[in-house]
Amino acid sequence: MTEMNRRITLAQRPVGPVGPECFAVDEVERPSPGPGEVLVEVQWLSIDPTIRGWMAMDTYLPAIAIGEPIRSGGLGTVIESNNDAYPVGTQVFGMPGWQRYAVMGGGLQVIPDGIEPEAALSVFGVTGLTAYFGLLDIGRPKEGETVLVSGAAGATGSVAGQIARIKGCRVVGIAGSDEKCAWLTDELGFDAAINYRTDDVPSAIRAACPNGVDVFFDNVGGDILQAALGNLAIRGRVVLCGAIAGYNDTEPRPGPNNLGNLIVQRGRMEGFIILDYLPRADEAIGDLATWVLGGDLTYAVDVVDGLDNAPQALDRLFTGANHGKVMVRL
Amino acid sequence: MTEMNRRITLAQRPVGPVGPECFAVDEVERPSPGPGEVLVEVQWLSIDPTIRGWMAMDTYLPAIAIGEPIRSGGLGTVIESNNDAYPVGTQVFGMPGWQRYAVMGGGLQVIPDGIEPEAALSVFGVTGLTAYFGLLDIGRPKEGETVLVSGAAGATGSVAGQIARIKGCRVVGIAGSDEKCAWLTDELGFDAAINYRTDDVPSAIRAACPNGVDVFFDNVGGDILQAALGNLAIRGRVVLCGAIAGYNDTEPRPGPNNLGNLIVQRGRMEGFIILDYLPRADEAIGDLATWVLGGDLTYAVDVVDGLDNAPQALDRLFTGANHGKVMVRL
Repeated sequence: MTEMNRRITLAQRPVGPVGPECFAVDEVERPSPGPGEVLVEVQWLSIDPTIRGWMAMDTYLPAIAIGEPIRSGGLGTVIESNNDAYPVGTQVFGMPGWQRYAVMGGGLQVIPDGIEPEAALSVFGVTGLTAYFGLLDIGRPKEGETVLVSGAAGATGSVAGQIARIKGCRVVGIAGSDEKCAWLTDELGFDAAINYRTDDVPSAIRAACPNGVDVFFDNVGGDILQAALGNLAIRGRVVLCGAIAGYNDTEPRPGPNNLGNLIVQRGRMEGFIILDYLPRADEAIGDLATWVLGGDLTYAVDVVDGLDNAPQALDRLFTGANHGKVMVRL
Repeated sequence: MTEMNRRITLAQRPVGPVGPECFAVDEVERPSPGPGEVLVEVQWLSIDPTIRGWMAMDTYLPAIAIGEPIRSGGLGTVIESNNDAYPVGTQVFGMPGWQRYAVMGGGLQVIPDGIEPEAALSVFGVTGLTAYFGLLDIGRPKEGETVLVSGAAGATGSVAGQIARIKGCRVVGIAGSDEKCAWLTDELGFDAAINYRTDDVPSAIRAACPNGVDVFFDNVGGDILQAALGNLAIRGRVVLCGAIAGYNDTEPRPGPNNLGNLIVQRGRMEGFIILDYLPRADEAIGDLATWVLGGDLTYAVDVVDGLDNAPQALDRLFTGANHGKVMVRL
């Protein structure tokens, strides 16, 4: 009997919020690995805001083709192997997409024994690397400086803020509920937290960052970026990690009206793509592992069960329902 | 008989374009220098877009007080001296303001013999330093890269573009008339020029910069900044030198709607204030002098005669009537 491969594919490109019409489910014959390839049984999917971009258009990667599985990071076990680097039974991270089985080539990351999938997909995965390199390589915080993080209760923001704390900075987080804010200050050691749904963000930033914002690690964009720019310290840095506030817009939204502050304050705003840093992953993972094992760095995961629920898992990122790294357990 | 000092002072802060109602003319008693001070007879004034900012509000310097002379760089001759560093007869550059005589303390720049005032106030003055450090220190162009300059026929832009040419870059300028564009390509050695009043700027940039914009030296902001961001090369840099398009706005105007390109392209946007670089002025002036004397670097000056015409000189910057560095000869 032929084994089947269940997949969630791109039915149409999103215009505005990603709705169920964007997805289709199909079952196709399970593929076989070619020379140098392996067949992976996918067990976990990493759900990231950038997926919406891949569904919509060419960005730093080509858009997902209609009818193809939704592109996604994921973790699984090698069940057939034509590649000695990845024998059967190896746990690997790669980009399998939203499907039960994936044929994958080289460039897979082997997950060492003793690392839980939840940790491999979050703090030791792309999320942790994004926080690490974005904050340290782009933001370059110095001890005693003030670091502001938006999307602070999210997977990347929560790790970025904690790294800033570990580096001796005053850390202020912006999140979407009092419960998330309490988690930031009570559990993660943030110095202050701002609820963007109930606080006046510009004045709350001013109050929480009396010496201005030296580093703004931004996952959100939009009005929150404008509010942070308005409170930038001299030689402040804005790390453009993401701009989830605008990802569902049907028309490009205007940018902040106070970019001139970058001149007056001699500020720097810089974007990055984590793919560029993957060759330096070991450097980050060494530090991250030290901090996690030492109890200095906490991570939260937001697990959704079932491949068919992957679209709902993606939606959690845009409604802000998630608390930590969203992932799907197949 | 008491000698009088004619001054142009700030009568009211500008809202929108700077009109004659913003200025008053008065004559007060000529001041005398105190200990360590000198009295300077002002011969030339440097007219810069930042003056409008100083008239309107606190920026990187406190706003000009109502009733005080308009703050301005200028060049003059020491006619009374209580400071051995600046004996009578010395030509100095400083911030005398819009007046015939100014008492000034330390921190004056002595203009060496053999440097014409027009050169001292432009290519060897703040303008040249702004172009030099903005382009080289913030933009960091590499040989073979494409450098786009807005306000390219202005004092700073024209020097920045030529430095980029000297450094082996492809240089594209944006200016406001066909005559200015012809000057850029025919006289200054720009590779291409775009007339923003008649060309479709985004597509003209795309055509002139087929490999994208590696460095955008921006004096203008607004729609031109958005168009440049839309054509940013991977790891492109935006040097925020000025944003004259918005200086006369009564409400802050929205920023570019494509800041997300800074993420996708791993771009950097950075502002600077030339005051921070004055300690390194000699470094720049050495290079600039070498290029001017070697015939590699041309500068243009736009001279307005008479102190009372300083407001009209300032206006030339905002209408784009000027061609090169605007200065007033008293």
